[in-house]
Amino acid sequence: MLEKLKERVFKANLSLVKQGLVIHTWGNASARDIKSGLIVIKPSGVSYKKMKPGDMVVLDQDGKIVEGKYKPSTDAPTHLLLYKEWKTINGVVHTHSTYAAAWAQAGKDIPPLGTTHADHFYGEVPCTRRLTEQEIENDYEVNTGRVILERLAKSDPLAVPSVLVNCHGPFSWGLDAEEAVHNAMALEEIARMAFYTVTLGTSKPADDYLLKKHHERKHGKNAYYGQKKKKK
Amino acid sequence: MLEKLKERVFKANLSLVKQGLVIHTWGNASARDIKSGLIVIKPSGVSYKKMKPGDMVVLDQDGKIVEGKYKPSTDAPTHLLLYKEWKTINGVVHTHSTYAAAWAQAGKDIPPLGTTHADHFYGEVPCTRRLTEQEIENDYEVNTGRVILERLAKSDPLAVPSVLVNCHGPFSWGLDAEEAVHNAMALEEIARMAFYTVTLGTSKPADDYLLKKHHERKHGKNAYYGQKKKKK
Amino acid sequence: MLEKLKERVFKANLSLVKQGLVIHTWGNASARDIKSGLIVIKPSGVSYKKMKPGDMVVLDQDGKIVEGKYKPSTDAPTHLLLYKEWKTINGVVHTHSTYAAAWAQAGKDIPPLGTTHADHFYGEVPCTRRLTEQEIENDYEVNTGRVILERLAKSDPLAVPSVLVNCHGPFSWGLDAEEAVHNAMALEEIARMAFYTVTLGTSKPADDYLLKKHHERKHGKNAYYGQKKKKK
Amino acid sequence: MLEKLKERVFKANLSLVKQGLVIHTWGNASARDIKSGLIVIKPSGVSYKKMKPGDMVVLDQDGKIVEGKYKPSTDAPTHLLLYKEWKTINGVVHTHSTYAAAWAQAGKDIPPLGTTHADHFYGEVPCTRRLTEQEIENDYEVNTGRVILERLAKSDPLAVPSVLVNCHGPFSWGLDAEEAVHNAMALEEIARMAFYTVTLGTSKPADDYLLKKHHERKHGKNAYYGQKKKKK
Repeated sequence: MLEKLKERVFKANLSLVKQGLVIHTWGNASARDIKSGLIVIKPSGVSYKKMKPGDMVVLDQDGKIVEGKYKPSTDAPTHLLLYKEWKTINGVVHTHSTYAAAWAQAGKDIPPLGTTHADHFYGEVPCTRRLTEQEIENDYEVNTGRVILERLAKSDPLAVPSVLVNCHGPFSWGLDAEEAVHNAMALEEIARMAFYTVTLGTSKPADDYLLKKHHERKHGKNAYYGQKKKKK
Repeated sequence: MLEKLKERVFKANLSLVKQGLVIHTWGNASARDIKSGLIVIKPSGVSYKKMKPGDMVVLDQDGKIVEGKYKPSTDAPTHLLLYKEWKTINGVVHTHSTYAAAWAQAGKDIPPLGTTHADHFYGEVPCTRRLTEQEIENDYEVNTGRVILERLAKSDPLAVPSVLVNCHGPFSWGLDAEEAVHNAMALEEIARMAFYTVTLGTSKPADDYLLKKHHERKHGKNAYYGQKKKKK
Repeated sequence: MLEKLKERVFKANLSLVKQGLVIHTWGNASARDIKSGLIVIKPSGVSYKKMKPGDMVVLDQDGKIVEGKYKPSTDAPTHLLLYKEWKTINGVVHTHSTYAAAWAQAGKDIPPLGTTHADHFYGEVPCTRRLTEQEIENDYEVNTGRVILERLAKSDPLAVPSVLVNCHGPFSWGLDAEEAVHNAMALEEIARMAFYTVTLGTSKPADDYLLKKHHERKHGKNAYYGQKKKKK
Repeated sequence: MLEKLKERVFKANLSLVKQGLVIHTWGNASARDIKSGLIVIKPSGVSYKKMKPGDMVVLDQDGKIVEGKYKPSTDAPTHLLLYKEWKTINGVVHTHSTYAAAWAQAGKDIPPLGTTHADHFYGEVPCTRRLTEQEIENDYEVNTGRVILERLAKSDPLAVPSVLVNCHGPFSWGLDAEEAVHNAMALEEIARMAFYTVTLGTSKPADDYLLKKHHERKHGKNAYYGQKKKKK
């Protein structure tokens, strides 16, 4: 079932490695089938070299395995919670990409220092609070999703399609798995650029009107970037 | 029309990706046809993987589409203004290359710290002022060109073939599209080198006479670098 | 003899180069044959380009050459001491990978700043003390092993499968040569991530319960990461 | 003439690009023919993509072109002076590799922070003084050689096979062109490692006896690294 979506999720997972966002098995990508609401996700701890499209695991909205010989990614409960809460997104990606993870480990939001940032993220890329001991010991992966939702409570997930989980690493999402990967790449690059900017001595965000301009020319009602009036 | 120049502009755009200066669609290259004065530029937001030479857009000097099925790069008005003002240049490149963009986000000129810099840029690589709210809200891309020209008012654009737009990123130019790409690569490397130098604790420029020597042995009247007396 | 293990050790050595952990001949990998207790190790100073599986050197537990036309890696005595003391490990890798070596040169433990670290190393990656003049002048390579054992005296080598030798570089190990390479890669990446985190201004470790959680979900009794109950 | 040596010098130049030490035409390699004393060097400003072995230029010891249709590298006078003064070296390489150039631009010696450094360079990698205005205006390239010799007056060039020219970049050398390239690669890596170490807060050199030990086990009278008693 969902063979076409499995193929896409498989490729999304491989592209994380190809783009240098993931080494070993340090990442996972999933997608939601819009019709059925089922989630296709990477199996846990399977080597990227040996993985095949058919190894992707199909879960229902509560995390029950509908199809698949493997256990799903350990982080599946986090993915599921994001899908449950955010109806507009159908792709989720988790990585430990170096610069984004460094900001997460520093426990800091990535400030919107320029237009590269603004083209993809409206405002800072937020960092969650640390989880409490209790949140870690019980339902850790669900609680990871909860602190993400808590932090983004007032945001449109498509306007801020990434978050940093404190002391952990980034999650990104989008309209589908490919866009989630696209955003994970953009996040790593703006995290890197922000690292160098801050090290050069500046952590003052760009002006609000510049950030707004760039966001809106690409994603707003009257967007004029790209070929179609509104890509998402 | 201008099929040969389209092919060159197409290749210039691809080389930005190949050289690591651009990910996604974060860049654009254009060229001016010397005879007709027409501008060939990358289409807006088209994936580099799918783009073909015939997708390049031909504009007249006022930005009107002369040929092409796509909309031109959003940054076309900036390119056009530079071509209009500077008759000696026939290639323009815009990227968000990491280190150059970090300097732009920091709002700092790149100081001429050594001969690598001096071989390509005479004096600091200047950073423009921030645009005002009004400049951003009306004719943003034209005003981006204007602050570039304002900052470089006293410079020969071929002696300082790059600029940093504050909170945004670099523009580079040259005698043709290939040279503009060449200068964009040089800029990113000297931006990177300057980042490490400054982090090591030194931001004092090299001596004026050293900078002058290196610039002139390569670009001056009595240049003796390379095989022809004067390459540009 | 041990042709299959030689092939594996040969490949482990090449993968150090392929993964960017080693340039020139700056590294070595070895493995222990569980049945015989013999050690297979890279020859000293042989170019990776010319090296063949049959060039691997077979040593007994005291370092005597059992088979091989070449001298073993200069660091063989360090490998041998680790194998002698730690019966659970059967693969050892030494590199001068950039970020791990930088931490070693700084003489600092790598603090456990996040879950990427915790997934592979339980607690900080320790840095040994500097060797004394006498320890360097006599039996230097054996003494290198001794300061490693001294520093890890209270640790399970499989829970902390890497160490930094002060002013030198990292050693990593594991159940076999492949796992030692795997850990050397993980070490370099967490060293890199920690460098950026610390430069961003944070060197405070993640909470103990988070570190424990991540370690145990992957390596503990009730591990639920991956497909088998316990991979190691 | 010297076709074999031209081929080797050609390959040495290309390997600088392949190893990431050179972009554009920012580097050059040369070799001395031991029998005749003639120097084979890269032509000036010729694209690496179009360059062929036969394009290498043959110079006599005074810099006169003995064979070749192109002008030699602008830096030829620097190479020639090093060959003239140092009879033991027969290969010279000049690059603007990023980290070594950053140290040169910072005007700082690279301190010997660990064994990676000590394996290749005995003591710090020295940085020359800045050239005076007069030294730059007259015989600039010869004077570049002179400040190198001045700085290394008390050193064995084979024990310290690289130098940083202040505000410029590194020169490396060795028994032949291949070894000069080898040393240029080692230099860039130790410059990089030292940058990270110093940024982590440590610029204290390793202990003298450790530096000596590593240098001597590889290059000393009783060297035991590698397969031959003494490689150089």
